[in-house]
Amino acid sequence: MSITVVGSIAFDAVETPFGQRDRMLGGAATHFALAASVLDQVRIVGPVGDDFGDEEMAILQTRGSNVDDVERVAGGRTFFWKGKYGWDLNTRDTLDTQLNVFEHFQPKLSEDSQNADVLFLANIQPGLQLQVREQCEAARFVALDSMNLWIDIARDELLDIIGRVDCLVLNDEELRQLTEKPNLISAAHAVLEWGPSMVVAKQGEYGSALITADDFFALPAYPLHQVVDPTGAGDTFAGGFVGFIAKHIDQLHDHEVLRNAMAYGTALASFNVEQFGTEGLQDIEASAVRERVDDLWRFARFERMEVALVD
Amino acid sequence: MSITVVGSIAFDAVETPFGQRDRMLGGAATHFALAASVLDQVRIVGPVGDDFGDEEMAILQTRGSNVDDVERVAGGRTFFWKGKYGWDLNTRDTLDTQLNVFEHFQPKLSEDSQNADVLFLANIQPGLQLQVREQCEAARFVALDSMNLWIDIARDELLDIIGRVDCLVLNDEELRQLTEKPNLISAAHAVLEWGPSMVVAKQGEYGSALITADDFFALPAYPLHQVVDPTGAGDTFAGGFVGFIAKHIDQLHDHEVLRNAMAYGTALASFNVEQFGTEGLQDIEASAVRERVDDLWRFARFERMEVALVD
Repeated sequence: MSITVVGSIAFDAVETPFGQRDRMLGGAATHFALAASVLDQVRIVGPVGDDFGDEEMAILQTRGSNVDDVERVAGGRTFFWKGKYGWDLNTRDTLDTQLNVFEHFQPKLSEDSQNADVLFLANIQPGLQLQVREQCEAARFVALDSMNLWIDIARDELLDIIGRVDCLVLNDEELRQLTEKPNLISAAHAVLEWGPSMVVAKQGEYGSALITADDFFALPAYPLHQVVDPTGAGDTFAGGFVGFIAKHIDQLHDHEVLRNAMAYGTALASFNVEQFGTEGLQDIEASAVRERVDDLWRFARFERMEVALVD
Repeated sequence: MSITVVGSIAFDAVETPFGQRDRMLGGAATHFALAASVLDQVRIVGPVGDDFGDEEMAILQTRGSNVDDVERVAGGRTFFWKGKYGWDLNTRDTLDTQLNVFEHFQPKLSEDSQNADVLFLANIQPGLQLQVREQCEAARFVALDSMNLWIDIARDELLDIIGRVDCLVLNDEELRQLTEKPNLISAAHAVLEWGPSMVVAKQGEYGSALITADDFFALPAYPLHQVVDPTGAGDTFAGGFVGFIAKHIDQLHDHEVLRNAMAYGTALASFNVEQFGTEGLQDIEASAVRERVDDLWRFARFERMEVALVD
């Protein structure tokens, strides 16, 4: 099985209370691939500029991810994002966004990328997501991320592409904005009416929730004493989630597959936020990932005890 | 076993996107007692005014809660709070607070209330909480709630009382404010250094987390399609949590007791927020509570699946 991801490959400048980096590899496709590659073969689709070096390309190729469809745009510059986080890391200000090579990006997938069983449409312009979706007719599972910007300025296109995916992964406040429903469960069920069979609400430090027509599941974020840089946590989560599903594509409708997928996404995201940029995921050990999934298994369960109640 | 709760008994005026009430029974002790009484015998301590009627007193006495220590202050008026919630219920503005009979409240507990095994110090002035704590020397489990106001204006007294309880129950942002630690886990561990053996972080619609020196547990809020009025959700949660512990006071250090306590608190809080004020808890059925605890049991667990990982 293989997973195709299309999305941003970026240079990020990030300032958090724990330090800053002026230029490091980032982007949604990057973070996704670093996580998904722990589980399965990944093919990355996206543009980079002349300023994108061999060192960065080598990081993209971690654990064998394929970069044949990473398009080098001659004379172009790589997507750039600069942001600063507040003291508890729950707020962030975007200080600069330079689309650069993304401005005129027209995704052209190789045959191998088109034939992937699993497709992740990371957060980019919904029209581009639709173009990629149409090139991947064979995909058996397609997940989509987006953001408030597209809800504001490209709502119709976003609804189009949502109608053509199996899973919407979105921040919980954006789910409310998208559906204009203040309640998370109502908002998720509204999305299920539009086509997807599942919705994952990303809730930042509170973890994530999975909503299907007949099931609900929630996991806390992995408890850490220090979070250094949350950038890319959502995409890392998506990489673990989608990666686990890719490995179990024939059991897609088994709730336990989806729940384990949530646990792998959560565990991998915890490594991402412990260090800046891609540092946390580059050299990750399988045993460390398993240990955190085991921890989550313990942190999230209780055994029912009988108790007399007063009516 | 019995539980003594000291805290506000109030009239609330509440406006939410789903309606409004100009005057209904509220207050931390009220919501706590309505929940804890599902599990155990409750004794309520707090002042009310001349305006407090027999109908309200009857609600306090739901499921046999004892009101011998509810002090009627002649010529006084009952505590009053008025608030308005935003569209997603995650923000609220306090429009009016009238301390009234609470301004000169000096708690004097009857012998029976002093002898309770379990004590809940709901959110009131920390000095008053300390006075009550000193009257209940026999208590085997004491839990405490507070709020940002006391962190701001009575920090030393608050630290005093925190050092004399077993459990601090606090909103997660207030935990950060109290400890000046931006990270929830670090904040909770700072509190554990001060004396309590456990910290419960209330996280609103995201649920709650339990932190002890050697354990972590988190539960989502019960998923509801509509929340009507979140007022008192935290106190209702505390009532279920403390009530379950009171029923298992000899197994206090069993993690499963604490986890089930979290589940009962979460389930009871979900009934509270479905209706205005005390409506959701007044006529609750034991079978309905058990059903929601069973649901939470399912919503929060996964069974580990083996998967090959790439190092």
